[in-house]
Amino acid sequence: MKLLSFRVAGTTSWGAVVGDGIVDLGRRSGFATLQQAIEADALPTLAGLLQNGQPEHRLESVELLAVIPNPPKIFCVGTNYHDHRIETGREVPEKPVIFSRFANSQVGHGQPLLRPRESEQFDFEGEIAVIIGRRGRRISEEQAWDYIAGYAPYCDATIRDWQRHTHQWIPGKNFPATGAFGPWMVTRDEIPDGADLSLVTRLNGQEVQRSSAALMIFSIPAIIAYCSTFTELEPGDVIVTGTPGGVGGKRTPPLWMKPGDTIEVEVGQVGTLRNIVRDDTAYS
Amino acid sequence: MKLLSFRVAGTTSWGAVVGDGIVDLGRRSGFATLQQAIEADALPTLAGLLQNGQPEHRLESVELLAVIPNPPKIFCVGTNYHDHRIETGREVPEKPVIFSRFANSQVGHGQPLLRPRESEQFDFEGEIAVIIGRRGRRISEEQAWDYIAGYAPYCDATIRDWQRHTHQWIPGKNFPATGAFGPWMVTRDEIPDGADLSLVTRLNGQEVQRSSAALMIFSIPAIIAYCSTFTELEPGDVIVTGTPGGVGGKRTPPLWMKPGDTIEVEVGQVGTLRNIVRDDTAYS
Repeated sequence: MKLLSFRVAGTTSWGAVVGDGIVDLGRRSGFATLQQAIEADALPTLAGLLQNGQPEHRLESVELLAVIPNPPKIFCVGTNYHDHRIETGREVPEKPVIFSRFANSQVGHGQPLLRPRESEQFDFEGEIAVIIGRRGRRISEEQAWDYIAGYAPYCDATIRDWQRHTHQWIPGKNFPATGAFGPWMVTRDEIPDGADLSLVTRLNGQEVQRSSAALMIFSIPAIIAYCSTFTELEPGDVIVTGTPGGVGGKRTPPLWMKPGDTIEVEVGQVGTLRNIVRDDTAYS
Repeated sequence: MKLLSFRVAGTTSWGAVVGDGIVDLGRRSGFATLQQAIEADALPTLAGLLQNGQPEHRLESVELLAVIPNPPKIFCVGTNYHDHRIETGREVPEKPVIFSRFANSQVGHGQPLLRPRESEQFDFEGEIAVIIGRRGRRISEEQAWDYIAGYAPYCDATIRDWQRHTHQWIPGKNFPATGAFGPWMVTRDEIPDGADLSLVTRLNGQEVQRSSAALMIFSIPAIIAYCSTFTELEPGDVIVTGTPGGVGGKRTPPLWMKPGDTIEVEVGQVGTLRNIVRDDTAYS
């Protein structure tokens, strides 16, 4: 099932993609948000709700939001592919490198990614996002797959000079509208092997990153095991699992995103996230 | 005004301290949470609600929660006092060092601080917390004070070895029940000069840290200006402004917190936060 969050006619809801339509599960399910449905372990019951009548909306006529607009936590994993680790000159990490995003840095498929006026170093990072389905702590790698609700593409766009202001990366990773998350999540039951997901990033149609979850330094289960040791995972938590080699800042000359650019992140078996870059003109 | 969040008879509410009682503003104000009252800019209107009748609760008969139990964001500032910077062997940072806590790492005054089974390196960090009162972006240092709702003590307890697993500090700063925040916030109108707040940490009655906001490397307005550049500040956001010298891990021998210890953080003109350390026995 492809599940997403959206806004239409001023109302926020969520639903399932059926053909080129959206079944409005905010209306049909009794859960106001996708996160609440995940928390209630209701995803397996949704299929029945898709049978009754026509989809309420056309996919192209709604504004998509981040798949989970307000996750309890957003974990990001740094330098989790060897090619990216090597281009950034870092050692093999002994443990997963974990930093975080705040929820208000996120946007959905089709919403603009915003380049702030503070920097021209606006870089792309295509990633595979994992959405957590169940509460848990100290989850073993063997059990970890059972804690996944689904997968989605994520663009962890980064303000490189602000990331490097100090040794802690939060500032460069949290400018408004720099974390694109969508267009939807595909539920785990439809992905035979999450360790086999492919990942491609394209800037203006040109491939700039290509990898696979199989090439992660810390696998998805290893990341879940690690994070769930230092915090309780909650339904709707999001883990953005790291970017492979090819980022713009490590090219010669650097390849920064500019207003008007189109950035795409495609995760095989899941879908393609597409956003256009704009200048941030808020708070001018 | 001293404002706090609490639970009594299974119900969560918030209120104001009057003598040794609590006026239940969750009942009287129409705002379900302190954060909602801050967001509605309602703090100046609360004084009138304190006049009618007796406080609903005795302070000693409720369970205090983190002042803001579920802040939109918790910013933490690293190495923001020279004595702590020197003991940790770090350079003078050119910009504020910003990392973050997740809301589920917080507890209130009197709730146990939990030492996880994964480590014995459980360290104290007494700090001054600032609660944000108004939404804003790119706030100037001159305007910054106007964005503060109030101040509170904060114990940013740290699992030192997990903080150092990699160069990113999130894991060592987010174990459950390691961020104590209380007992209350004092509203800004009662603090003539936020740059003059004193800070003392005591472990089992023994003073282990002493400083003042006047000694911060980045002042409270400078931190607000910096953070509001890379993200929009929201009402109820919390900025934990850094710890001074004297942390346990830099002593010889190290002074770690153990089950049964009492840790206190006193902020002058605000109050004293007190917690007892326990072993974390959840998810055993």
